[in-house]
Amino acid sequence: MSLGIAIGARVRKSPYFDKTIEDGVTSFSVYNHMYMPTGYGDPLAEYDRLINGVAMWDVAVERQVSLKGPDAEKLARYLTTRDLGALNIGQGRYVPLCDHRGTLINDPVLLPIAEDEYWLSIADSDVLLFSRAIAAERGFDVSIHEPDVSPLAIQGPKAVEVVSDLFGDWVRDLKYFGHREARLQGIPLHVARSGWSKQGGYELYLMDGQRGGELWDIVKEAGQPYGIGPGTPNYIERLESGLVSYGADTDDFTNPYEVGLGKFVSLGREDDFIGKEALKKIHADGIKRQFVGYKIEGEALAAGNQHKWPVKNGESHIGFVSASAWSPRVQSNIGVGLVETAFSEPGSKVTIQTDTEGGDLSATVSKLPFDIPA
Amino acid sequence: MSLGIAIGARVRKSPYFDKTIEDGVTSFSVYNHMYMPTGYGDPLAEYDRLINGVAMWDVAVERQVSLKGPDAEKLARYLTTRDLGALNIGQGRYVPLCDHRGTLINDPVLLPIAEDEYWLSIADSDVLLFSRAIAAERGFDVSIHEPDVSPLAIQGPKAVEVVSDLFGDWVRDLKYFGHREARLQGIPLHVARSGWSKQGGYELYLMDGQRGGELWDIVKEAGQPYGIGPGTPNYIERLESGLVSYGADTDDFTNPYEVGLGKFVSLGREDDFIGKEALKKIHADGIKRQFVGYKIEGEALAAGNQHKWPVKNGESHIGFVSASAWSPRVQSNIGVGLVETAFSEPGSKVTIQTDTEGGDLSATVSKLPFDIPA
Repeated sequence: MSLGIAIGARVRKSPYFDKTIEDGVTSFSVYNHMYMPTGYGDPLAEYDRLINGVAMWDVAVERQVSLKGPDAEKLARYLTTRDLGALNIGQGRYVPLCDHRGTLINDPVLLPIAEDEYWLSIADSDVLLFSRAIAAERGFDVSIHEPDVSPLAIQGPKAVEVVSDLFGDWVRDLKYFGHREARLQGIPLHVARSGWSKQGGYELYLMDGQRGGELWDIVKEAGQPYGIGPGTPNYIERLESGLVSYGADTDDFTNPYEVGLGKFVSLGREDDFIGKEALKKIHADGIKRQFVGYKIEGEALAAGNQHKWPVKNGESHIGFVSASAWSPRVQSNIGVGLVETAFSEPGSKVTIQTDTEGGDLSATVSKLPFDIPA
Repeated sequence: MSLGIAIGARVRKSPYFDKTIEDGVTSFSVYNHMYMPTGYGDPLAEYDRLINGVAMWDVAVERQVSLKGPDAEKLARYLTTRDLGALNIGQGRYVPLCDHRGTLINDPVLLPIAEDEYWLSIADSDVLLFSRAIAAERGFDVSIHEPDVSPLAIQGPKAVEVVSDLFGDWVRDLKYFGHREARLQGIPLHVARSGWSKQGGYELYLMDGQRGGELWDIVKEAGQPYGIGPGTPNYIERLESGLVSYGADTDDFTNPYEVGLGKFVSLGREDDFIGKEALKKIHADGIKRQFVGYKIEGEALAAGNQHKWPVKNGESHIGFVSASAWSPRVQSNIGVGLVETAFSEPGSKVTIQTDTEGGDLSATVSKLPFDIPA
């Protein structure tokens, strides 16, 4: 089934859009009201570049929500469940955001940009609207907008070589989620050590949407000696690494504890934050579901599941598989998803009801990330 | 350029998804985190069915945000700029929603379902998150969730025949935005007189996502005598009719006055609503931009513009064209978009900078809707 995507002005285009077309992008999704490349027609080559080499990804859909003004820090702390401690300019943090029910509504990286400015580098939900509602209702003196900032990810074990060739050896000393303002042939950007993979790498936060094409070409050229090629947030690697995909793995009842983010919920904080009371109760009651891996028997899965697959114990529905694929490194079919806690221990036997693989498949619950045989 | 759409579990599927595939859908967009059909491969036939016959559209992406509880009405009134007066169960209203800056954040239809329950049938933004933030911060006693409700639109001059054959002649007496609970072969739904076209019609608000396929087949069969066929919210007809498309025609600075919704902003209301103070100032200062039509010279446009096209007066940028097409009824290229008020009077001459039509095209500003010659 080959289905087209409508290209029009309602969905926004990344500053790298034309370059991704030039370089052979074959499919898109939509994320934060913007086209997001999802493949260049050769999934195994894209996977291999990420695992063994270096890949460049248009991830401009990681939009920034800028909180700026005298109460920006106060708002940042109130929005997140995590005790942020001292906030140092240039050092980012992964921060779950919940609503007042304790439901996860986004899982951004918070980047302190200045004493009075913080960016939330967001997953796919309208944090801009939510934050504005909170700030206005609480009378916070803060301006909230989406700046002209569009990340380009450089991921894989050789990413550090490409980025240090471009910027200098100081990039090797950046801590994870560390970021620093820089210029590349006059193009303003932030260099951050981050990215949605466990293979290491950087994200260049382009700060001038008119110069996306230039930046793309510069990175592409600098990466030639290392075999750089285009890619996208990688479907298989994220499963192997157990990265949570907000919206795919979560629903309107998912709390941070269910998806392994309990360590970023600081119930002992003295100050108030959104969802604190609800999360205390959720924590005291204990969770009902847990985000786990599945090792799935049977022939190699041709591609990811297009629908969520029900997970069953006998005839009882006990969870779902939100994404699945053949893993070249685990040498097994693998998947991730939420399952009832009674079945969340590694080794639990479950049945997965597929719609494309000849019906039910046997599977074993696994810890995340999956073990990669040496 | 034919680009694919990635189909996976992150983006939700409509209850009619499989049926739209069966009936030959060729392209999708994503709207409210759900796949939205945008075409079946024959745009002129789809347009003709809407204008002269009857079409059925999967518009499940019009998600509902249910406000339910003792303070549901209070929240509904606080969220919208419009003076709702008496709210009668079964009578919907078109209601702009603004943030506290007076910026339009959605333009839903409000459906009073019960004394303590209201649905917002929304355009593409996370009203669920915004409403929850407001309700919680104000301590309103209301529960907010997305119910299992998925509209199927039946649009065109013969829609009334199909729907009255299915439900009875009472549907002819429904007022515009009127709705009533009903069953069709046991399938629970609401019948509403509404739809995103000016050709008349109904929307069946399916209330059981497991029964989308059944409902699709029933409507398809009932429509056979009238030549029903599949379609989607129609790109050309909405331009002719001057319907605002939230997200396409608006940006993060658009207020209701700019897009012709000033009549739904009730500054004289005694009660408070979100954006009231900001909108008073915007109204007093006067608007800087206006949503207008354009009649565009030159050869028939092959398809809609993929990017927003700049509108110029000489070399000055004065607005943009958010969507454009050849109109078979106006017998001209037409478009819509925001332009500076100095140029918003019908008859103003402007230049449109295309990226696909050989450069600049001359255009004349037009009122909306466009006049359709008899």
